[in-house]
Amino acid sequence: MVNKKNKKKYKSLWSGRFTRSNSEIMQTINSSISFDKRLYMKDIEASIAHCKMLAMKNIITKTEGKKIIEGLLAIEKEIKTNKMVFKDELEDIHTHIEIRLIELIGSTAKKLHTARSRNDQVATDTRLWVREEIDNCDKLLSNLQQVLLDKAEKHYADIMPGFTHLQCAQPITLGHHLLAYVEMLGRDRTRFKDTRVRLNESPLGAAAIAGTTFNINRDFTASELGFSKPMSNSIDSVSDRDFIIETLSVCNITSIHLSRLAEELVLWSSAGFNFIQLPDSFSTGSSIMPQKRNPDAAELVRGKAGRILGNLVSLSSVLKGLPLAYSKDMQEDKEPLFDSIDNLQISLEVMTGMVNDINFNIKEMHAMADKGYSTATDLADWLVRELKIPFRDAHNITGKIVALAEKSKRKLSNLSLKEMQAIEKRINKEVFNILDIRSSVNAKKSFGGTSPLNVMQSIKLYKNKWL
Amino acid sequence: MVNKKNKKKYKSLWSGRFTRSNSEIMQTINSSISFDKRLYMKDIEASIAHCKMLAMKNIITKTEGKKIIEGLLAIEKEIKTNKMVFKDELEDIHTHIEIRLIELIGSTAKKLHTARSRNDQVATDTRLWVREEIDNCDKLLSNLQQVLLDKAEKHYADIMPGFTHLQCAQPITLGHHLLAYVEMLGRDRTRFKDTRVRLNESPLGAAAIAGTTFNINRDFTASELGFSKPMSNSIDSVSDRDFIIETLSVCNITSIHLSRLAEELVLWSSAGFNFIQLPDSFSTGSSIMPQKRNPDAAELVRGKAGRILGNLVSLSSVLKGLPLAYSKDMQEDKEPLFDSIDNLQISLEVMTGMVNDINFNIKEMHAMADKGYSTATDLADWLVRELKIPFRDAHNITGKIVALAEKSKRKLSNLSLKEMQAIEKRINKEVFNILDIRSSVNAKKSFGGTSPLNVMQSIKLYKNKWL
Amino acid sequence: MVNKKNKKKYKSLWSGRFTRSNSEIMQTINSSISFDKRLYMKDIEASIAHCKMLAMKNIITKTEGKKIIEGLLAIEKEIKTNKMVFKDELEDIHTHIEIRLIELIGSTAKKLHTARSRNDQVATDTRLWVREEIDNCDKLLSNLQQVLLDKAEKHYADIMPGFTHLQCAQPITLGHHLLAYVEMLGRDRTRFKDTRVRLNESPLGAAAIAGTTFNINRDFTASELGFSKPMSNSIDSVSDRDFIIETLSVCNITSIHLSRLAEELVLWSSAGFNFIQLPDSFSTGSSIMPQKRNPDAAELVRGKAGRILGNLVSLSSVLKGLPLAYSKDMQEDKEPLFDSIDNLQISLEVMTGMVNDINFNIKEMHAMADKGYSTATDLADWLVRELKIPFRDAHNITGKIVALAEKSKRKLSNLSLKEMQAIEKRINKEVFNILDIRSSVNAKKSFGGTSPLNVMQSIKLYKNKWL
Amino acid sequence: MVNKKNKKKYKSLWSGRFTRSNSEIMQTINSSISFDKRLYMKDIEASIAHCKMLAMKNIITKTEGKKIIEGLLAIEKEIKTNKMVFKDELEDIHTHIEIRLIELIGSTAKKLHTARSRNDQVATDTRLWVREEIDNCDKLLSNLQQVLLDKAEKHYADIMPGFTHLQCAQPITLGHHLLAYVEMLGRDRTRFKDTRVRLNESPLGAAAIAGTTFNINRDFTASELGFSKPMSNSIDSVSDRDFIIETLSVCNITSIHLSRLAEELVLWSSAGFNFIQLPDSFSTGSSIMPQKRNPDAAELVRGKAGRILGNLVSLSSVLKGLPLAYSKDMQEDKEPLFDSIDNLQISLEVMTGMVNDINFNIKEMHAMADKGYSTATDLADWLVRELKIPFRDAHNITGKIVALAEKSKRKLSNLSLKEMQAIEKRINKEVFNILDIRSSVNAKKSFGGTSPLNVMQSIKLYKNKWL
Repeated sequence: MVNKKNKKKYKSLWSGRFTRSNSEIMQTINSSISFDKRLYMKDIEASIAHCKMLAMKNIITKTEGKKIIEGLLAIEKEIKTNKMVFKDELEDIHTHIEIRLIELIGSTAKKLHTARSRNDQVATDTRLWVREEIDNCDKLLSNLQQVLLDKAEKHYADIMPGFTHLQCAQPITLGHHLLAYVEMLGRDRTRFKDTRVRLNESPLGAAAIAGTTFNINRDFTASELGFSKPMSNSIDSVSDRDFIIETLSVCNITSIHLSRLAEELVLWSSAGFNFIQLPDSFSTGSSIMPQKRNPDAAELVRGKAGRILGNLVSLSSVLKGLPLAYSKDMQEDKEPLFDSIDNLQISLEVMTGMVNDINFNIKEMHAMADKGYSTATDLADWLVRELKIPFRDAHNITGKIVALAEKSKRKLSNLSLKEMQAIEKRINKEVFNILDIRSSVNAKKSFGGTSPLNVMQSIKLYKNKWL
Repeated sequence: MVNKKNKKKYKSLWSGRFTRSNSEIMQTINSSISFDKRLYMKDIEASIAHCKMLAMKNIITKTEGKKIIEGLLAIEKEIKTNKMVFKDELEDIHTHIEIRLIELIGSTAKKLHTARSRNDQVATDTRLWVREEIDNCDKLLSNLQQVLLDKAEKHYADIMPGFTHLQCAQPITLGHHLLAYVEMLGRDRTRFKDTRVRLNESPLGAAAIAGTTFNINRDFTASELGFSKPMSNSIDSVSDRDFIIETLSVCNITSIHLSRLAEELVLWSSAGFNFIQLPDSFSTGSSIMPQKRNPDAAELVRGKAGRILGNLVSLSSVLKGLPLAYSKDMQEDKEPLFDSIDNLQISLEVMTGMVNDINFNIKEMHAMADKGYSTATDLADWLVRELKIPFRDAHNITGKIVALAEKSKRKLSNLSLKEMQAIEKRINKEVFNILDIRSSVNAKKSFGGTSPLNVMQSIKLYKNKWL
Repeated sequence: MVNKKNKKKYKSLWSGRFTRSNSEIMQTINSSISFDKRLYMKDIEASIAHCKMLAMKNIITKTEGKKIIEGLLAIEKEIKTNKMVFKDELEDIHTHIEIRLIELIGSTAKKLHTARSRNDQVATDTRLWVREEIDNCDKLLSNLQQVLLDKAEKHYADIMPGFTHLQCAQPITLGHHLLAYVEMLGRDRTRFKDTRVRLNESPLGAAAIAGTTFNINRDFTASELGFSKPMSNSIDSVSDRDFIIETLSVCNITSIHLSRLAEELVLWSSAGFNFIQLPDSFSTGSSIMPQKRNPDAAELVRGKAGRILGNLVSLSSVLKGLPLAYSKDMQEDKEPLFDSIDNLQISLEVMTGMVNDINFNIKEMHAMADKGYSTATDLADWLVRELKIPFRDAHNITGKIVALAEKSKRKLSNLSLKEMQAIEKRINKEVFNILDIRSSVNAKKSFGGTSPLNVMQSIKLYKNKWL
Repeated sequence: MVNKKNKKKYKSLWSGRFTRSNSEIMQTINSSISFDKRLYMKDIEASIAHCKMLAMKNIITKTEGKKIIEGLLAIEKEIKTNKMVFKDELEDIHTHIEIRLIELIGSTAKKLHTARSRNDQVATDTRLWVREEIDNCDKLLSNLQQVLLDKAEKHYADIMPGFTHLQCAQPITLGHHLLAYVEMLGRDRTRFKDTRVRLNESPLGAAAIAGTTFNINRDFTASELGFSKPMSNSIDSVSDRDFIIETLSVCNITSIHLSRLAEELVLWSSAGFNFIQLPDSFSTGSSIMPQKRNPDAAELVRGKAGRILGNLVSLSSVLKGLPLAYSKDMQEDKEPLFDSIDNLQISLEVMTGMVNDINFNIKEMHAMADKGYSTATDLADWLVRELKIPFRDAHNITGKIVALAEKSKRKLSNLSLKEMQAIEKRINKEVFNILDIRSSVNAKKSFGGTSPLNVMQSIKLYKNKWL
């Protein structure tokens, strides 16, 4: 049925516009060197450990081992100093290093790959890389906690509105608000820590899929590389990427936390709130409106959370439904990983610098907290506590008093005792002790509450715990 | 500018088709009772603990406390026995219980809500619910590990092809393959456990946002409810849902693991592989083709992973960029949570039942493993190990031998020594000890390798560790 | 190797806690009746069309056809009036109707499924359902456009700040701002329309996968059901769900648009902005703070966008990598579809009601627009236009003038001509015509600009186009 | 409260490890030049159109216009020939071009930005870029359709198993199967086309947000740039990115289609199926197992679908809940866009090359189709059609006959008439005309069915429609 002439016509039509040959196309999709070169330090580190073990177990000679290690260190230096030329046709970082090693030390180099495979090698490199970046994230999280604690200490007693539904609900202390983020970030640090413990096992020695017939010592390489132990199942070692999905999941949660703080900075720097003045270093201006400060950095941090979520989706969707052991789809693991780590880390750096240099407009915050009857719940609580009025009834009474104040556009504390007694006769002058916002925050001294005293105690505890 | 006549016309056009009043529309979007009624047990449990504390601290009297608790227990019974009528206009489970309590015990009921708020109440209920379901997931994961261990024990020495790129790469033992899943699920159990530890702190007493002015004892309620301690920051307590995102993240990873096993069951039951016979109980047939067994259950488990990922995206996207403390968007947390837990748990049950009842067609597996020169790497390793040929050279030699075998459509073990020596003269008759797939798997006895011996040792360890 | 005693022990351990039998578990995961019953009207509609065709083509007799149709209509009535009892063991809506038809009319019912299969039947029902809901979405979108146009007409000349980075940038008219949403929703309507055209082809007659051997008339059934034509490829007909992913994609875009308007309503109703008063019907209050209006409805609409995105991810991830033709994973298509349609539609209804009843605090908007030198760009444009100063230089001059005004806390229009001339001597008194915000908006009369005149013209055009 | 000494200590701790200054950090997060330089052709194209209009409307002189355009063309050449040096501190491509223009032609360059703003400029550039890439996608889709049609033509009558649940269900023709993808890709082309129409409106002239006070001609610039018209609302023009989300949504659907074909290629090249031989150019081998062909290219295409879904999630989540008009979060729109387009296009190229060079093992396909009683439905249909047995009863009879054949391990066509008559006495020898798979596919000649005749007719239609 196939008309050769026709076929030719299609071919030429097709090749007419798209001039790339099949092998170029394949190289483009298949090559990973453009991104996996970031693993080079880890690849060399793991190869050195492997090489030491091979020599120790007499699978290669000591001399061979020494020669290989020297070659690897030379390559490391070359890459560090940008002397390595990367080529798409050498596909990945592992091949680049292997080929270069042969160039440098000759055929001894060909012994390095004994008793391992690309599969366990890549898994090992990636785990080492993730482990280090988790440690970097931990440091960056700690830095951000530190500046938050610093600011919380400075503003431990300054009053701002506590929002629900972005409506002013109750007065809180700014210090207390900032400490909420210290808590969130603290949990994120433990999430990274748990992930680190879980991934810190060595796949090296799992070989392609089934383990190896060489008499290797996996405990040794695991220990050399700082892993807690070798992984127990060779198939699992080379086929799973759950440690990356978990890392991306923690990045996702952390970036959501940052996005919430970023949103608050955007809101607070708006004309509507004017709670903060952003530092010049983290805002952009306009030559035409020199007074304007755009919260670009905060907006970008907020946006990064979307991207980091996208990366989690990418890899989750890639791994879903893949049969064991290795499929090439798994090469799609690295770009989302690198991108999420990069963007989380820059977000953390930005937030740290920005929070450190921010100026809070305490007066504006206080003023907004003082509007809107935000001590109404204090009044209700007082009715319950002092007059033993059931909670729901106390709420109704308070509602009437607030309505009265609103009608005459006064604060609660500006109502007269008589006016309040007209609504609930048992109210006495003690009530005036709890109607202003300063009294309100001071009274919230149950554990975890917003009182300045609590804030100072928490700061002390957090410094011990987190810094 | 507004033409009243026109406006009327629009109005009537609009109301023409959509007859619902605004209040009906608002009720529809605002009410959560249709799904949050699942929290009723937790809501009552938390209310009882709160009530005990109020009485202990003399915020209410002992008698009042007793009356309230009796009322709550009566309501619990009513709901359990389907006697509670749920109404959209009562919005949520908390209001249903509160209103019913007033009906049952009168105005004393109104004292229960003293020193707490809907915000800390909901956060507490949800944490209790998640904690219990994490425990249920752990049990279900353990069950699945158990049947996998059972099957692995039965098939500890049976040989199947180990796949990379869905191509036969090396022979492995079926037991070893199944244990890879025991490992994955084991990590998932530790993920759930870590999540559980992190979320097991009590928000109760955080009140709406700022803490409370009552002299409450948060340690007591935390302890009553099995929490490790009260949460340290009231704002954080009511505004974060990271514990749910983390739970959904672990559900996501676990369901991806299950989807991979499910994919394998679908493949293995296909005409192409015929590695397994699915049990009747977990496949569907056709009246017209009685021999056919459709792997519906496995396909559904595979599909559920997509849904569980979607739920993670939903909540992540909802929380991203929300300012503190509570916004109503957060009501969107429960449905994805419930849905992911439900679907993960049914997936685990299905996989457990299915794996338990599966029959492996050992012969078919063995036969496929025996095709395709899957011991080529064993030959290369032998050349390295015994003849001290560098690894990369050994690979080339092996390639030539395999090509020879393929050309004449023979197995490697059916080549003559002479033929092999023509390619590499140092090869000796010892080589025949490693060319068949049984020798291959037996030789993979380094730690984590696929040898039957390793499999049996792992099973013993896993039973101690996981069951 | 398997120790039977042990095996038993595991079994009983396992069955100890989890009492459900395998068949119960399978039924739970396999049954779809709980959600696919929503398709009943479409299933009956499609069956009637199929039955008419069978009779027309003499595959069944006219009498049989009549009997079947009467039976189907009777069942439709039963379901409509809640007389049908749904049972998990009958799996899906199609089986329910088929079984009930046999009960009602006897064995003639068994002829209905001639020349079709569950696969083309389900695909047909679903397309019919989606098509109808797209029409409903279109109506709801039109309603929302209408109330936006109504409000825009009322406020065509009222001034508010135009924001970039949530900073006041330039004055705009409220009408113009609202029309931006009319545009967005208009594009969404065309998206739904395009999706509708693409999905409106009939899969009926594709049978299980390969077509049928009966001499059917697919044009007839397509036409009966309002499809533009029968689908061309039977395999494609039963294996693709791209029409659902596309629908979910449009729901996603539309809900993002709504979430942006919702965000603005939340911001505008906050203490910081106070631009609007939400209607009672779409906000919730507090018994204790009667003046407070929480924008619950807007927050929920904002949150729904996360959920609708999650549904898109679910189905995309489910379909990714599925081989043709039908796999049971595809049963996971309906719940995300139903959920997205439901939530988009309620969001549209809520926004329509809310926008209709909103009160804009024109004074507050105007006042904020009048702060912050938002006419600075008008000044720069004037320098370019009237004094022929290059744009970038004009910007610098303007920056100096704004700095001067800010220093002395005056508006631009309150600077003296002399002060301005000290910075750029060519400035003349004409400049005062463009320094106030009213002049600014009036002058933006190029096509698409914010001038009241433009707004009125646009409204006229939109009414013709969209209502 | 702040202890200065302590503060210092923290600072130094912090700055100890992280040596980057705030301004470096801000530059890193804020700069977009690393990716938006891809827009340079579009930026220059749009600037030229804008410049022509300014000159036409006498906002600048003809001479100025000419000078600017020459400068822009010179810059275009510089960038094309890699002579432009990109610097992070110049932030984006627009600034690079603007600064370079000043260097080249002096202060006249400063007039180019008259009557436009960065906001409408970026929106214009991006729309032009997307439009061109949509056209490229269309061509690539057409190429893939072409090779599929080519293969379908070659194999219009070759028989393969049609799968449901990856179980052999009915025989189909390979040509018919391949045409299913032609259909899917055809719908994708119309999706891109619809998206293109919708986005092809010009934002140029919307300026920052409100339009401009200059007397510009937006129709002219729109027409110059090939847009159908200027966008109607300036706020909408600069604040929405729905055209990118829509593009990403279409990429998502298309890549899902490709992933399904990729999955089939992976399956078909596996040992289990052996339906195809992948071309060397799109598979990778192993030096050690020269006979092995890993379907890397297909696996990567399958994996790309996950990544493309992730990009859609990223931008959707970024835009959700953003207030109008421009927020810096929107800078996160370009990377997911570029990444999805790049990965979709390489996937299309790979699939085109791979399908073109594939060899189908027709015998293997035929053999599998001939197993498993895949003509059972044909038998049932025959019973209905010829013997007038109701469909459901015919199914039961068929089930019994299949069971009989299976018991004796024979094909249906190898049963004797007598054996069949023992089950249903009315069966006559005509039945043998429909029991083999060739008869089965030939008989599926209703519209859309799998018969070779249909396939050939469809190919003819498709060639007219799509090529």
